[in-house]
Amino acid sequence: MYVRTALATVSAVLAAVGVWASEGKWTPQQLSQLGVKWLREQGLQLEPSELWNPATSQGLLAAVADIGGCSSALVSPQGLLLTNHHCVWSVLQQHSRAGKNLIATGFLASTLEAELPAPSLSALFPTGFRDVTAELVGAAPAGADDLTRAHAVAQAEKALVAACEGQGDRRCKVAAFDDGLQYVLIESLEYRDVRLVYAPPRALGDFGGEVDNWMWPRHTGDFALLRLWGSRAGQPAAMSKDNVPLSTQHFLKLGFQGVTPGELVFTAGYPVRSFRSLTAPEMGERAGLYFPLRAELYSDWLTILQNAAAESEATRLALSDRMQNLANVAKNARGQVAGLRRGNLVEKKWALENLVLARAAARAEMREAVAARQMLASIVEQRRTVWRRDALLEAMQRGPLPLHFALTLVRWARERVKPDMERQPEYMERNRARLWEALLRAQEGFHLPTEKALMTDLFLRFAALPEECRSPTVDRFLGPARSREAIAGRVDHLLAPTRVLDWPSLKTMFDESFAALRLRRDPLLELAIALDDELRTAEKRREQSEGTISRLRPAWLAAVHELVGQPVSPDANQTLRVSFGHVKGYAPQDGLLMLPQTTLSGLLAKAGEEPPFTVSEAIWAASRRITESRWRDGTLGDIPVNFLADLDTSLGTSGSPILNARGELVGLNFDRVWEAVASDFGYDPELNRNISVDVRFLLWTLEEVEGRPAERLLRELGAKPF
Amino acid sequence: MYVRTALATVSAVLAAVGVWASEGKWTPQQLSQLGVKWLREQGLQLEPSELWNPATSQGLLAAVADIGGCSSALVSPQGLLLTNHHCVWSVLQQHSRAGKNLIATGFLASTLEAELPAPSLSALFPTGFRDVTAELVGAAPAGADDLTRAHAVAQAEKALVAACEGQGDRRCKVAAFDDGLQYVLIESLEYRDVRLVYAPPRALGDFGGEVDNWMWPRHTGDFALLRLWGSRAGQPAAMSKDNVPLSTQHFLKLGFQGVTPGELVFTAGYPVRSFRSLTAPEMGERAGLYFPLRAELYSDWLTILQNAAAESEATRLALSDRMQNLANVAKNARGQVAGLRRGNLVEKKWALENLVLARAAARAEMREAVAARQMLASIVEQRRTVWRRDALLEAMQRGPLPLHFALTLVRWARERVKPDMERQPEYMERNRARLWEALLRAQEGFHLPTEKALMTDLFLRFAALPEECRSPTVDRFLGPARSREAIAGRVDHLLAPTRVLDWPSLKTMFDESFAALRLRRDPLLELAIALDDELRTAEKRREQSEGTISRLRPAWLAAVHELVGQPVSPDANQTLRVSFGHVKGYAPQDGLLMLPQTTLSGLLAKAGEEPPFTVSEAIWAASRRITESRWRDGTLGDIPVNFLADLDTSLGTSGSPILNARGELVGLNFDRVWEAVASDFGYDPELNRNISVDVRFLLWTLEEVEGRPAERLLRELGAKPF
Repeated sequence: MYVRTALATVSAVLAAVGVWASEGKWTPQQLSQLGVKWLREQGLQLEPSELWNPATSQGLLAAVADIGGCSSALVSPQGLLLTNHHCVWSVLQQHSRAGKNLIATGFLASTLEAELPAPSLSALFPTGFRDVTAELVGAAPAGADDLTRAHAVAQAEKALVAACEGQGDRRCKVAAFDDGLQYVLIESLEYRDVRLVYAPPRALGDFGGEVDNWMWPRHTGDFALLRLWGSRAGQPAAMSKDNVPLSTQHFLKLGFQGVTPGELVFTAGYPVRSFRSLTAPEMGERAGLYFPLRAELYSDWLTILQNAAAESEATRLALSDRMQNLANVAKNARGQVAGLRRGNLVEKKWALENLVLARAAARAEMREAVAARQMLASIVEQRRTVWRRDALLEAMQRGPLPLHFALTLVRWARERVKPDMERQPEYMERNRARLWEALLRAQEGFHLPTEKALMTDLFLRFAALPEECRSPTVDRFLGPARSREAIAGRVDHLLAPTRVLDWPSLKTMFDESFAALRLRRDPLLELAIALDDELRTAEKRREQSEGTISRLRPAWLAAVHELVGQPVSPDANQTLRVSFGHVKGYAPQDGLLMLPQTTLSGLLAKAGEEPPFTVSEAIWAASRRITESRWRDGTLGDIPVNFLADLDTSLGTSGSPILNARGELVGLNFDRVWEAVASDFGYDPELNRNISVDVRFLLWTLEEVEGRPAERLLRELGAKPF
Repeated sequence: MYVRTALATVSAVLAAVGVWASEGKWTPQQLSQLGVKWLREQGLQLEPSELWNPATSQGLLAAVADIGGCSSALVSPQGLLLTNHHCVWSVLQQHSRAGKNLIATGFLASTLEAELPAPSLSALFPTGFRDVTAELVGAAPAGADDLTRAHAVAQAEKALVAACEGQGDRRCKVAAFDDGLQYVLIESLEYRDVRLVYAPPRALGDFGGEVDNWMWPRHTGDFALLRLWGSRAGQPAAMSKDNVPLSTQHFLKLGFQGVTPGELVFTAGYPVRSFRSLTAPEMGERAGLYFPLRAELYSDWLTILQNAAAESEATRLALSDRMQNLANVAKNARGQVAGLRRGNLVEKKWALENLVLARAAARAEMREAVAARQMLASIVEQRRTVWRRDALLEAMQRGPLPLHFALTLVRWARERVKPDMERQPEYMERNRARLWEALLRAQEGFHLPTEKALMTDLFLRFAALPEECRSPTVDRFLGPARSREAIAGRVDHLLAPTRVLDWPSLKTMFDESFAALRLRRDPLLELAIALDDELRTAEKRREQSEGTISRLRPAWLAAVHELVGQPVSPDANQTLRVSFGHVKGYAPQDGLLMLPQTTLSGLLAKAGEEPPFTVSEAIWAASRRITESRWRDGTLGDIPVNFLADLDTSLGTSGSPILNARGELVGLNFDRVWEAVASDFGYDPELNRNISVDVRFLLWTLEEVEGRPAERLLRELGAKPF
C-alpha cells in the first residue's frame, strides 16, 4: 500500500527536491553531460567548450578565480578582478586606522602605483582537472577497515598533490565530490600579489547592512575591484615592487546593456558547501542541532562584540570584521532553520528516500545501497550523545582569540615534527607562511575584554553540558565554578600570567617545539594542550566515521541517482561550478510579488539619516542626472541597481560573475533571498533566487559618482570612449 | 520668477494633489456633474439616475444605510443587511458573557426567531436631499459678527430639522459641506429594530487581527449579516416582538462572479471625515500636533487596557470593544503621521496654495480669497499656545469612564433647562433615550482599576503642561501631586466616596437638575462641574473660530476650485458618497508589487497555532474541496478572499458594498492599505487602495463552512438553488 502511494507520487517528490528545474551547480566536466540541446533550450548561445575546453584548459571559466571564500573574475587584459565589496572588507580594515577609516570612505586608487597590497588575498585559477577516483579508491589494501582506508586515501591524496605542485607556481588539491563518489585532482595557478583598486564607501557597498542582508528588495552596490600583479614575464610572483600588472588574454568582456527580465544568465564560481546529498537523518541533525546551536552561539557572541564596539571607535574598527562575519553566519543559521522548516526539506528528503528504499527492496543488487543508507542513519544516532560537546570543542577554535592562538601553537608544534606528508593539510610546510599570516591578521582584531567575555560565555556552555558528554579538561579547569562570575574569575586567573598574548613571545613560540612549549608551564598553553588532546580524540572519531561515510555515501547515492535518471550535480565543495538560470522575480506569499529588478530611485527612496541607509552627497548629486546617463535602462527609466535570478548559488559564490547568453559579464552575484537560505539543503524553483548587482550600477557609480579619478578604470573595462 | 516656476508646474502640482484620478467621494447630487461620458469611460454601464434619481428618491443608493460609523447595504427583499464583522463587534460583545463568547464562536441564527436584537445599531436610509445653503447663509443679519452668525446658522439648522422630523419616522440633519461651502438638509428613514443574523468566528472575521490591520496582503472574512425588522405595514418601528422582517424592493443583487483585476467597481457609503479641503497650515497642525498626540495617547491607553485584560477572561471580554477601538485609532494615527510625511502632503498643499496665491495676486476680485487664506493660517497660529491643553480636555470626555459619566451628567443637566432648540444637538430632547443608552452600554465595559489607571495617566499629562496653558481645575485638584504615585493617590481619594459609579444612583442623577447635582457635594461631580466650565470656555472659543472659518473657507475654496477647473468632491462628513475606481494592485516600494487578489490557499499558508492566525477545523475541512466549489475563481484556481481597488474611502465606509459596472454587489469594503491611511489628506492614485472581501468568499463560507444551517441565508441571497 505504502509503496503504491509512493510510486504514484514519484514525479511530485522529484519536483519537490528540485530535479528538472534550474537546480545544479555543475562541474566543468558535467557541462558536456548536460548536452548542447538542453543548454540551447535554456537560451545559451555558446558551445559547452567555449565555457571550458578540457583539451586546452581554456574558455570563459579560465577567467574565474577562487580568492579564498569568495569568487572573482578577470575583467581586463591588465589583471583587473571584479568581486564583492564584502569580499574585500578585511583588506579595507587592514589599511584603516583611527582617523583613516577606509571602510567608511571607500578607496579609489587614482594610479597603478596607489593600489593597496592585499596580502590576505590570493587568487587561484584552475588549469586542469583529472579524475583520480580509481587511484584513490584503489589506494587502500583490500579488506582494510575504514580508518586504514581513510588514511590510505589521505596519503594517496597528499602524494598526488605533491607530485602536481612539483611543477612550480602550481597549487593543487584533491577534491572529494559527495564524500567520495568522485575524486578530482585540481591544478591551479596561484597569484599572491593581489592589490585593492577600488571599493565604494560602506554606505554604498553595504547599503541596507544587516537589515537588508539576505533580503529583497535590495539596493546594494556590493562591488569592488582588485588587480593581479605578477612578474614581468607574466607569471605569478610573491608581492614585490618589481611586479607589474598581470597581462592576460583570459578575461570576461562586459555586457554594457546589463540584464533584462526573462533572459538566460549563468554564473561561475566556487560554492563552498551544500548538503543536498545528505540523507534525511543527517539533514535532520543539521536542522535540529547544528544550525540551532550556530544561530544561538553566534548571536550571543555578536552581542558581546557589539557591546564592546559601542565603547569606542577604535574598538569598533578592530572588531568590525569579526562582527560582520558573526552577524552573517548567525543570520544565515536562523535562515537555514526557518527555511528547512518552511520548505519541509527534511520531510521531502524522507519521502524521496522512502521511494528509493521501496524500489530497492525488490532488487538484490540494491542490497548494499539499502544497507549503506541504514548505516548512515545509525552514525547520526551514535554521535547524538556527544554532539553538543564536540560542537563546542570545535567552536572553541574559531571563537575567543586566546584559545585560538594557544591551540594553533600547540597543534602546529605537534604536527611540525611529523614528516610533511603525514601532517594535517593545513599544517604542512607549504602552509607555514599562511598559518602565521592568519595569526597576524587575527591579532589585529584582538580586544582583551571581549576575548574574556567570549571565553566566559563558552565555558558557561561547557558547564551546562549533561553528565554523559562533559569535557574533563574544562571540568578540571573550572573546578567548582559554575556561575558567570565565578567562571569569569577563572578566565582572568588564566589569562593574567600567560605570555601567549604577548606578540613577540607568540612569535618565538611559533617556532618552538612541543616540549619547549610544555616546559614554559604557561597556564593557557597547558589548558590548550589538554584541550588539544580532547580535540584530537574527537577528530579521530570524526575521521573514522568520515572514512565509513566515504564508503557508504557513494553506494547510497548511486541508487538515488539511478532513480533520478539524469545528471545530478554534486554538493558544493569549493571547486569551480557553473549554474544556469533566468532573470526572474518570485512570490514569497499570496498577494505579494517580488519584481526582478530594483532601481537607483528605489535606493534613494530608502535613504534616511541613519546607517545603514545613508546616501552620500555625491550620489544625490549624480542621481539628478539619471535621465542623461548612458547606463539608464530604457524600460525602467532608471539606473538599474540589483536583480534576481534563479541561479543555484551558495556560500562562496559571492563575487561570481553573472554572464549572459553570449558570455558577457552583465552582473555580479552577492547574496540570496531569505526564502532561499536553506537552498543548501534543497532547491525550490519557486523561491530560489540569488541577488546580483547589475553591471550598469557599477559603471554608473564609476562614471557619475566617482567621476574623473575613475576614468582610467572605465577605459580599462572597455567602457570609455564608447 | 517664482510665479513662472509655479505656473510651469501646475499640472505636476495638480497631479500631486490627485486631481484627474480616481479621487472623489461624490455626493449623489454630483453624479450628474461628473457626466455620463466620464462614467462610461470608467466602464459604468448604468445611467447616473439608476444610482440615484432625485425626482423619485430611488436608485441603487437607496439600499445603502448609515448604521452609525459604519455603512451597510440591503441585500434581500426581507431586510437582510450586509456589513463588516468589525461593525457588529459591539453586538457580539453585548450578547456574550463568560462561558458564552460570541466574539470567539461567531453567531448564526438558524431561524428568523433566533436573530439577536442589536439595540446599539440603527439604520438610516436617505430619502431626500435639499440644498439649504441660501437659507442658512441668509439666516444671519447683515454685518453680524462671526459668533452671532454662527448662532443664527445653528438656530436655522435646528428649525429646518424640526420641521423635517415633524413628518414622523423621519430623521433629518443639516450637513455642512467643506465648512459651509454648501449646506444640505438630508431626510432619512430610521429603522431601529436591527437584529444580528450572522457573524463568523473572530478567527475568520478578524483573521490577522491587529497584525494585519491596515495591511496587505490580507485574508480576512470581515463580513456579517444583520436584518431590519419593522411594523407589519413595512414601516420603521421600535423593537418589538410584533415586528416582522422588513419587506423592501430596494436591495442590491449579488454579482456571483465576484471581481476580476482591472474591472470597474464603485462603492457607496458614509465616509465620516476627511481633511483635504484644509489649508496647508491647518494640515500642518494635524500632521504635527493632532495625530502625534492621538498616536501617543491612545497607544498608552491601549497598553493600560491590555495589561488589565491579561488578568482575567471576564475583564478581557468587558474591555475588548474599547481595546479594539483604541488599537484601531492609534494605528490609524501612526499611519496618518507616516503617510503625511511619506507623501509630503503638507508640502504639496503648500505648493498648490502658493500657485493659487500667485495667480490671485494679479486679480482684484481674488482679494477676499487671499485674505481668507491668511486668516485661516492665523487661526492655527493663535490656538497653538493652548492647543495641547484643549486637546487633553477633549480627550477626557472619551477616556476614563468616571469622568465621562460625570461630565455627561453635568452637561445634560445644564442643557436640559434650555429650550430644546437652543441646546447642543446631542442633548436635545430627541436624543434623550440615545444618551442614556450610550451610558448604559459604556457601563458594560467599566473596569475600576483600568479607569483609575487611565485617569492617572490623563492627569499626569495635564501636570506636564507648560505654564502658559494649564488647567486651573486640574491644578486645584492635583494640589502639589506631580508623580504617578501621588496622582494615583488623588484619583483614589476622588473615586472612593463618589456615587456616580453606583449604577442606580447614576440613573437617579440622570434626571436630577444641575442644582440638585451640585447639592450632592459629590467630589467627582464637583470636579466635573469645574472641568465642564473649562470645556465650555474652550467650546465657545472653538465655536467662535468655527463661525469665522465657515465664512473664510468657502471664500478660499472658491479660488482653489476655480484653478482646478473641474468638479471637486467635498470633504467627507458622514453623508452618502459614491466613489468610482478599478480593481488593481500597487507598488509600495521599488522591487515589490502587491497583487490585487488573495486566495483561500494564501489564508491557509498564513495559518498558525497562535491568534490572530488560527484557522478552524471547519475551514480546513472545507478547504479540501476547493476544486469542487462553485465559488472558485477559474483564473486564480482558488477561492478568492480579499481584493484591492483604488476607491476613495475613509473611516465610516467600513461595510460599504462594492458594485460592478452593472450595479451588482461583488464585494464588501472593510479597510485601506497602510500606504493609504493618510489619504484623508490627499489621494495618491499610485498608493490609494481600499481592501474588500470578494463576495464569493462570503458565499463560500456560508455554503462550505457553515453548511446546512446557512442554507436559508444563501437562498435569501439568491444563491440557491443555482
